[in-house]
Amino acid sequence: MTTSPVAIVRVQLGERSYSISVGSNLLGAAASYQDLPRGSSAVIVSNETVGPLYAERLAAALAGFYPKVDVVLLPDGEAHKTWPTLQTIFDAMLAAHCDRSTTVFALGGGVIGDLAGFAAACYMRGVAYVQVPTTLLAQVDSSVGGKTGVNHPSGKNMIGAFHQPLAVVADVDVLESLPERELVAGLAEVIKYGAVADDSFLGWIEASLPALLARDKPSLVQAVTRSCHIKAQVVASDERESGVRAILNFGHTFAHAIETGTGHGTWLHGEAVGCGMAMAADLSVRLGLIEPAHAARIARIVAAAGLPLRAPALGVARYLELMRMDKKAEAGQLRFIVLEGPGRAAVRGADAAAVAATIESFGG
Amino acid sequence: MTTSPVAIVRVQLGERSYSISVGSNLLGAAASYQDLPRGSSAVIVSNETVGPLYAERLAAALAGFYPKVDVVLLPDGEAHKTWPTLQTIFDAMLAAHCDRSTTVFALGGGVIGDLAGFAAACYMRGVAYVQVPTTLLAQVDSSVGGKTGVNHPSGKNMIGAFHQPLAVVADVDVLESLPERELVAGLAEVIKYGAVADDSFLGWIEASLPALLARDKPSLVQAVTRSCHIKAQVVASDERESGVRAILNFGHTFAHAIETGTGHGTWLHGEAVGCGMAMAADLSVRLGLIEPAHAARIARIVAAAGLPLRAPALGVARYLELMRMDKKAEAGQLRFIVLEGPGRAAVRGADAAAVAATIESFGG
Repeated sequence: MTTSPVAIVRVQLGERSYSISVGSNLLGAAASYQDLPRGSSAVIVSNETVGPLYAERLAAALAGFYPKVDVVLLPDGEAHKTWPTLQTIFDAMLAAHCDRSTTVFALGGGVIGDLAGFAAACYMRGVAYVQVPTTLLAQVDSSVGGKTGVNHPSGKNMIGAFHQPLAVVADVDVLESLPERELVAGLAEVIKYGAVADDSFLGWIEASLPALLARDKPSLVQAVTRSCHIKAQVVASDERESGVRAILNFGHTFAHAIETGTGHGTWLHGEAVGCGMAMAADLSVRLGLIEPAHAARIARIVAAAGLPLRAPALGVARYLELMRMDKKAEAGQLRFIVLEGPGRAAVRGADAAAVAATIESFGG
Repeated sequence: MTTSPVAIVRVQLGERSYSISVGSNLLGAAASYQDLPRGSSAVIVSNETVGPLYAERLAAALAGFYPKVDVVLLPDGEAHKTWPTLQTIFDAMLAAHCDRSTTVFALGGGVIGDLAGFAAACYMRGVAYVQVPTTLLAQVDSSVGGKTGVNHPSGKNMIGAFHQPLAVVADVDVLESLPERELVAGLAEVIKYGAVADDSFLGWIEASLPALLARDKPSLVQAVTRSCHIKAQVVASDERESGVRAILNFGHTFAHAIETGTGHGTWLHGEAVGCGMAMAADLSVRLGLIEPAHAARIARIVAAAGLPLRAPALGVARYLELMRMDKKAEAGQLRFIVLEGPGRAAVRGADAAAVAATIESFGG
């Protein structure tokens, strides 16, 4: 095994600070885990798709550091990001006699990260966990911020916790096995960071889309590193999402309505975010905040990445109903993350008429 | 309604600091809640026993501060401190359109506090909550420390979170409606504070037991205030229970084994703690840490309070098995909170033979 250069992104959160390692040949290398605190056991939480590919390699890398390494495999997919699946993890951890010094390793995409992280947050009132994200979406999104949780029939991520990982190991090699559709979905969040916080990064993304879609490793390392860096800066200034962190939800109010309205799992989260960003940019034009040309550029990049630009036809009334259920709709008012210019975003209330016009113009 | 003097205990936890008000005429007084941050709604979580007695008065006191006050009534009893009951709270809060600015009011004993507090910790990744404890046990124990959670068939409080309340309102008037057995159970924790941290308080308790059992209000205010003060000092120095806070679990390793072994709800928690403290004091003698006379004094006070001194006959092997499942049994070693002298406690490992001798001498 060759050693490769590793990019490190530090997430500054006081005593909860941690590092994200981004590179090649990381997942199966013992060196990736050598600085973690030891404990009585490790438990790898993964799913039936990813587990068979990587759990054994991860377990082998951890074997020198923990007396015992257990593996819990969950069914794959957003449809299983539920309360009963969480119970499955607790049952398995209790059966394996996991204690307060156990470290949970989340090996998988965002669903596994959210489930395993929330299980770690609640198991014996909180144990440590490490993220080993295996999708582009998870590497650029769920690996920073400490958001964990499960869905409820009434809405996504309604039940959860803020629980920071000890460390994140983002190995771009695993993206080789990622289905094309999921790679594309992950690019939605990469585009988002450029759109809300760094216009020069957005330009780099636009130019690099062919390389990223061809899974060029240096380009992927660059995309993941810069995305994590931007997210880490935003999260460090607002860990509990009371203010500026909300800009990371650009496109997400529309996206959550799309995902809930079509049934979780029909659209991939990133696909919904892609369409949602184009919609939020359109709404920003309607609110007089940006020029139509800037919204058109966002839509063009979304489309070039292979993301959908047409919203599912749920009807305006259903969209509004779903968005009022969203966590960001405080005290009944609809709130959106809007663009105020290239690389600049803000939270704004919007009247239902403007929102309805956006939904209609996207075929919703 | 007359206004009464209120004792305030401040729990110092940095930005999570809060105050406990102890006194008469507090629960139904708007003034008890006037300093709380406002929000879109309040939700009172209570049970079918306590709710009908006090929920209306609490709702009336809150009505001036929140546009909407909902009530969620759960079945009564430790047997319902479960994952499915938690789901009931989430369902009710989502149906009531609770949002991130909702404040949860836990109106009831420790079970309600743990359930409502954990629900608040997880609802939309965390909303505020206020404890309005209606049992002596909850007033002196669950109202300080931020421990929340539910039981699992494998053990008590296996799933939970540390989540500090905004405030605690401990009204001793509500103790008038408390069944005798529960009042006695609550005294177990009061005795505990004296035993582990304040021998002069233990002396006061011994002298005041008749007044406390007669529900003399000034004595109850004194017992609750000093208990909360001791617990607050310990918790402030160890919020996440990594060290000294463990002494508050004096008697609890035996107690959890009793409760789990007899089936949750058969013994009241305080009853099990009463017996467990006498057992832990006995173990301390066997480990050569205290004189037999001190253990005898602890047992005498436990008995004088009306608490049981005879452990259920589960058999030594079953006790040891149950205690190895306990959260405090890290990496397989049995650990106990022992007394090192009057008002002094510590965590110690103990070999199975000494523990077995204690269990046998208490009829276990």
